[in-house]
Amino acid sequence: MAEAAIQSGLRGVVAGTTSLSSVGAGGDNLRYRGYDVEDLASHAIFEETAYLLLYGKLPTRTELDAYLYKLRGMRELPAALKDVLERIPGDTHPMDVLRTGCSMLGTLYPERSFAEQDAVADRLLASLPSMLGYWYRFTKFGERIATATPDATIAGQVTRLLTGREPSEEIRRFMEASLTLYAEHEFNASTFTARVIAGTLSDLYSCVTGAIGALRGPLHGGANEAAMELIEQFREPDEAVAAVKAKLARKEKVMGFGHAVYKQRDPRNDVFKEWSRRLAKGAADGYLFPVSEAIEQLMRDEKRLFPNADFYCATAYHFAGIATPMFTPLFAIARVSGWCAHIKEQRADNKLIRPAAEYVGPDHVNFIPLERR
Amino acid sequence: MAEAAIQSGLRGVVAGTTSLSSVGAGGDNLRYRGYDVEDLASHAIFEETAYLLLYGKLPTRTELDAYLYKLRGMRELPAALKDVLERIPGDTHPMDVLRTGCSMLGTLYPERSFAEQDAVADRLLASLPSMLGYWYRFTKFGERIATATPDATIAGQVTRLLTGREPSEEIRRFMEASLTLYAEHEFNASTFTARVIAGTLSDLYSCVTGAIGALRGPLHGGANEAAMELIEQFREPDEAVAAVKAKLARKEKVMGFGHAVYKQRDPRNDVFKEWSRRLAKGAADGYLFPVSEAIEQLMRDEKRLFPNADFYCATAYHFAGIATPMFTPLFAIARVSGWCAHIKEQRADNKLIRPAAEYVGPDHVNFIPLERR
Ligand SMILES: CC(C)(COP(=O)(O)OP(=O)(O)OC[C@H]1O[C@@H](n2cnc3c(N)ncnc32)[C@H](O)[C@@H]1OP(=O)(O)O)[C@@H](O)C(=O)NCCC(=O)NCCS
Ligand SMILES: CC(C)(COP(=O)(O)OP(=O)(O)OC[C@H]1O[C@@H](n2cnc3c(N)ncnc32)[C@H](O)[C@@H]1OP(=O)(O)O)[C@@H](O)C(=O)NCCC(=O)NCCS
Repeated sequence: MAEAAIQSGLRGVVAGTTSLSSVGAGGDNLRYRGYDVEDLASHAIFEETAYLLLYGKLPTRTELDAYLYKLRGMRELPAALKDVLERIPGDTHPMDVLRTGCSMLGTLYPERSFAEQDAVADRLLASLPSMLGYWYRFTKFGERIATATPDATIAGQVTRLLTGREPSEEIRRFMEASLTLYAEHEFNASTFTARVIAGTLSDLYSCVTGAIGALRGPLHGGANEAAMELIEQFREPDEAVAAVKAKLARKEKVMGFGHAVYKQRDPRNDVFKEWSRRLAKGAADGYLFPVSEAIEQLMRDEKRLFPNADFYCATAYHFAGIATPMFTPLFAIARVSGWCAHIKEQRADNKLIRPAAEYVGPDHVNFIPLERR
Repeated sequence: MAEAAIQSGLRGVVAGTTSLSSVGAGGDNLRYRGYDVEDLASHAIFEETAYLLLYGKLPTRTELDAYLYKLRGMRELPAALKDVLERIPGDTHPMDVLRTGCSMLGTLYPERSFAEQDAVADRLLASLPSMLGYWYRFTKFGERIATATPDATIAGQVTRLLTGREPSEEIRRFMEASLTLYAEHEFNASTFTARVIAGTLSDLYSCVTGAIGALRGPLHGGANEAAMELIEQFREPDEAVAAVKAKLARKEKVMGFGHAVYKQRDPRNDVFKEWSRRLAKGAADGYLFPVSEAIEQLMRDEKRLFPNADFYCATAYHFAGIATPMFTPLFAIARVSGWCAHIKEQRADNKLIRPAAEYVGPDHVNFIPLERR
């Protein structure tokens, strides 16, 4: 067992329990607290999903309205945080902006006890889109924008901040779906990071700051950006096929394919793919959709690998007018709901998460004082 | 096996290999790359230990001099980082200051590729003490200090910044020992956090920022501060015994006792205890040493628990003139050497760390649209 764990990045090792989501329980499905993610992505807004994850049930109309109102009321950022955002260089990766902004927020509105955890979770949900938008528009256009936009939902607000205009109904609907699909995914690497930090009984900002740092990596959330960087190089399916074949021959990974848990398909991909197909119709570079399909087919034929959530999400965000470096930050803005729900769950029945290591270094060595080395 | 893992916070589950340290290999000892930690704590300065961890061998005199010179050259902080530190409120926990400062530094000197990892590790080693000192003296005394002090080593610099004066030779020697004892400890929770983040191939600042957040928790690094807050309440051993008995009766944990790996003793404790005994002699409240010993004896008698590294470290730091909220930050300033060494090790043979969870939530639930809830 030790050996197995060593070789597999804890793959398949049960590190704890959760009632937040089941990944692949029926083979290839994904459910949040029992609800099929496809239903939530089609019929719910992101805040309904966040409420379900954080508070345990789908909200009624009255509850949802109150929740939306509350979150909207926290869209303004404190002045000290805006000062910090203005000092982050314009060529910084926006995940580093969220990581720094989240940590700074924790110094301005600290979580003084776990009794405040819901308030902190809600504040993070409301603040991350504002941080991203504020920094983006300041460093890109020199504007100091008001982050409290009139948009009813986070999806609407963040799309307006990132594109500079009110989203169409179709795009807003897609953004709700994308945030819902990205909201939660069991013990993925960033959520597990949040739980390891929570296990020391640290504060919620520390947990989320760490999780943002984990999501940033290209083997995790960063895959959607890496996928886009690949896809946008091509104008024709054939061109893509040749280039990806060469990539595989060089033993390089193709980001947006494969999964640590799913073995047949990633259920989120079906929804993202349909959105990508649909939004491609109105896009100047809609040819990127058939390019993506060609890559999908090739990966299936050559490697028996299927697209994960990050592959068609890439072109769908692109067609919706979102700049590529904003893809992973959008993932973070969604996943903060799942992270906070997991932190609450970890705290409710905590045990320090502290595995063992197999020592493979030198045996006992005698110390030699500096002057005799 | 799944069950065992669930119940135990991965206790005893081998999550990977390391050649950096062996914890309790011979029952109760601790070695860094084969060297007994007691030898390093008695005869080496912290930078020798950091060099050993990061670069694989103890440095020669020439190598050490070059390393010290290099680290000293990075003690100044960039202006944007100082601006950020000045905006962090004075009542913030200093671990949140380090977390934010580390994340901000990553936006100013980003790690553009893994080829830069050593340079980033060295910069963090050199910058964390300066961040802590700059923020502390700015918010406490309104001073904008020069962080590039004349002190030869980090231990000397940080002690001067935190106490406002040049440390005595005895205190400087103790500080070297304390940083060495705190430098590395296998797959503890913060190091494991750093490795989980590194497993996504994220950047080094993300890994260290997350690790700082984990170390902050009272079940981990935060224990030294919690221990001090307990100890300093008493003037007499009897008083302490009565209060700690009552605490145990209320089923509260006594911070600074117990360990996830060691079962007989924590070898670091012996060294810290001797330093605490020694420094107590020159301290106005040296009676806190016998108070600590009484708590130790009681914990052994009542719970068969022994002090870990954080228990006597608390009074030793206190006698050395360090304010309690600075104890865990000093731990972080030391442990960043171990974290960075583990990040390098993780990257050299990477696999995404992604465990499984046991789902204990509701079975499939049918979605009910908002208007019918
Ligand atoms: C997600 C991922 C890390 C999970 O994989 P894992 O459980 O750790 O398994 P491995 O990475 O060891 O992959 C197993 C095999 O499939 C191959 N493989 C997996 N994903 C691949 C990809 N995207 N492209 C090419 N080959 C891939 C590996 O090279 C490995 O082959 P080998 O056995 O010949 O060495 C992995 O599929 C991956 O890196 N995908 C790309 C990044 C990505 O899209 N991340 C987002 C996940 S939602
Ligand atoms: C370090 C620590 C988290 C490791 O423990 P662990 O492997 O997770 O084991 P547990 O916390 O489940 O402890 C096992 C038993 O010892 C008891 N125990 C452990 N540490 C204790 C402490 N410091 N005070 C009182 N009881 C303690 C637990 O309550 C538990 O008792 P139970 O079986 O009756 O419930 C734990 O000892 C602890 O919380 N110590 C205090 C914090 C601390 O000093 N941290 C710094 C570590 S270097």
